[in-house]
This record gives sequence, structure tokens and C-alpha cells, in this order.
Amino acid sequence: MTRVPLEKKVLSENDRIAAELRSMFQAHRILCLNFISSPGAGKTALLERTLEGLPRETRVATLTGDIQTDNDARRLAGYGFPVRQISSGGACHLDARMVQRALADWSLKEIDLLLIENVGNLVCPTSYDLGEAAKIVVLSAAEGDDKPLKYPATFYKASLLIINKIDLLPYVSFSLPTACENALRIHPGIEILEVSCTTGQGLDNWRQWLNDKRLATRAPANRP
Amino acid sequence: MTRVPLEKKVLSENDRIAAELRSMFQAHRILCLNFISSPGAGKTALLERTLEGLPRETRVATLTGDIQTDNDARRLAGYGFPVRQISSGGACHLDARMVQRALADWSLKEIDLLLIENVGNLVCPTSYDLGEAAKIVVLSAAEGDDKPLKYPATFYKASLLIINKIDLLPYVSFSLPTACENALRIHPGIEILEVSCTTGQGLDNWRQWLNDKRLATRAPANRP
Repeated sequence: MTRVPLEKKVLSENDRIAAELRSMFQAHRILCLNFISSPGAGKTALLERTLEGLPRETRVATLTGDIQTDNDARRLAGYGFPVRQISSGGACHLDARMVQRALADWSLKEIDLLLIENVGNLVCPTSYDLGEAAKIVVLSAAEGDDKPLKYPATFYKASLLIINKIDLLPYVSFSLPTACENALRIHPGIEILEVSCTTGQGLDNWRQWLNDKRLATRAPANRP
Repeated sequence: MTRVPLEKKVLSENDRIAAELRSMFQAHRILCLNFISSPGAGKTALLERTLEGLPRETRVATLTGDIQTDNDARRLAGYGFPVRQISSGGACHLDARMVQRALADWSLKEIDLLLIENVGNLVCPTSYDLGEAAKIVVLSAAEGDDKPLKYPATFYKASLLIINKIDLLPYVSFSLPTACENALRIHPGIEILEVSCTTGQGLDNWRQWLNDKRLATRAPANRP
């Protein structure tokens, strides 16, 4: 019972910092994306495939959150773009202050795409705005097509659902139409892409989505 | 910063209730097991296979935690044993008070095995003792063999690791020896079973483990 008011205070402090980050990203025309999923749904693999497909001159940076280990940061560093590990210090999510600290000595003028890989958790990260332009939820086909109904907050807040590991579809009882129907029931406007980071299937659509968002972010605002 | 003392208070209150539950379970010689995993690792499927394999006269009851939906409770109710849904009310974990409330009007004299399926989350449930005799962590082979290192607290506190979905091993890059090595690095004493709830492989070993624990719980304590 005593927890609720404090939690509200923590969240409103987080929202304040997230709003600062969002203004900063907008001022620098940076597209910031916050990737959320269960452990092992393939966030890091998706970021690997994403970085590997970007031209060398792309002004992209990655923050990767982990409770323990810098495995993900080491995996991502191999692609030659700046990567920074955020250790959540045992916390089950990233918060806006962790992102603010991680960016403190980076020159935002040199970035136009910021990818944030959250801690593997389909519940808690959803409550913490990081100033992102969009949340992206990654769902592995091995997890089951019922997950949007069981973890609705994340699917409700995400702009895009990426169904990953579709190469496993022949071996698991996961129905793509059911998963999409469930996601759309929770969030009628959600966009959905189906990919396999193992075979590469569907990744062109993801790259196109990312490119469209980057162009929209960098386009001068329409003026009357 | 303000969060830590309150979190400690919440956890110590939880520990107090969990201790009451544990005494109660011991007094009734009930084996209570707390199943923890990521979303979609297969906790419900494992419980389905477990219930389906138990003789009709088994005095087993199941509590299943979910943020939303009673899908799991409905799935488990089909096996003819008592099942109760605990809605975590948005919380990312079950706590001891939720278990206490769910058991309030059950006659514990009629139970000797209590299975608790936690909310799908590999991080937060670990901090909340439910009075169980053992935590069991379920890891899907589709999640990756690095998970014990990335989410160490759960693997450290679990008595048993069940690696599920081993039928997917030919199709995913998951090394059983590496997963076991990683789990044993975090928790040298952890027991490990490998199963597939789809094909049934390894389930006999799990049933044997469960039966041994039940017998040990019901055996009269050795007296000098």
C-alpha cells in the first residue's frame, strides 16, 4: 500500500528527465528507439543485423542495458559503431536517468540514430519513458502467440511489434494470424513486422521501416 | 535513492509473511514449489504435463500468477485438480501476501503438493520469497545459453533448472553444455534437467525429481 505513492513519485521524476531527453533528441533531430522484449527474444541479434546493414557513415549509436555482463555491448561493438553498456545495477529496467548519464559525454551532434536495448523483461521497462520516439517490442515465435494478451501494457505502448524467429514457425505452436490479432486487439494502431535474424527473412522490411522513420525525423518540419 | 529503504521495508514485510507460509507448509507437510521463467519459456506447459501425469488421487493444488487474463488457470483447470488464478494487478511478480490471500479459504489439510506459477519475468519474482521449499527456474532452449550469466539472481536462488523445449535444439544456437556450465558457474549446487513438454523427452526425470521431493517432505523427520 505504501508503495504506490513513492512509485508515482519515481515515475513522475522519470517522466521529467525523459521529457528533457526527448527535447534534446528533437533539437538534434535524433531518432531514438527503445527496444523491449523478454529475455532471449532476440533484441541483440536484431541490433546486430541492423548495424551490419547500415552504411559505414551512418551516425548511429547504441546503448545496451543489462543487469549483469557486458556480453551484448561486446557483441554489438564488433560492427564499428559506438556502443555503450548501461549496467542497470540489478534493476529490472532502464530509466531515463541511466540514459541521461550514459549520454553525458557523448556529442549528440554526431548522432542521428540512437538505439536503446532495454533489460530483457516484458513487464517493467514499459513503465519507464526514456525519451524515445517509439518503443519497439520484440516477440520471439518460440514464446507463444498469446503474449500480447498476457503482457498488454508493453504491446499497448509499442509503436511497432517485431515478431522474430519466424524460422522456428514450423517447429512451434505459434500462429502468426493469432499473434497479430491479439496484438491488434490490445493496440489497434500497432505496426507489425515478421523477421528472422537467423535467416534474414523480413529484415528488408525492418530496414525500410527504420529508414522511413529516420528520414521523417530529419525532414524539416512543415511550415505553413 | 529514496526507493531503496522502502524496497527493503517491502521485502522484509514480504519475508515475514513468507516465513509464516513456510511454517504452515511444513506443519502440513506440503511441498511448495515456485516456478519462475521468462514469458513463454513453458511454465504452464510444464505444469500441464505434470498434472496430466499425476494419479487422480494426488493432493495437488496450483496457483498461477498473471498480470492479465486467466488463460493459464483455464488451461490448468482441465486436469481436474484445484487451480486458482492470482491476478498480480499489474505487478511484475507474485508476493507472499498474494499467496496467503489465495490460500485463505483452502483447507491445507487436503493438499500435499502446491505448485505456484509465477508471473513471466526472469528478474523481479526472484526477490519475493513465497514460502516455497524450492524455486525452479525454467529456461527455454530458444532463449539462449547465456541467460544464467545475464540473469544470475534467479539461477543463484533456484534449486533446480529445467531446460525446456529441447526439441528445438536442432534449430537454435543453444549449447546444452554451455548452458549447464553457465548455470553451474552462477550456482554450483543447482540441479539441472532437460525436457521437452512437446515431445515428452526428459519428463520422466522431472516426475522422478518431483516424487523424490514429495516423499522427502512427507517422511517423518529423523529423530535421534
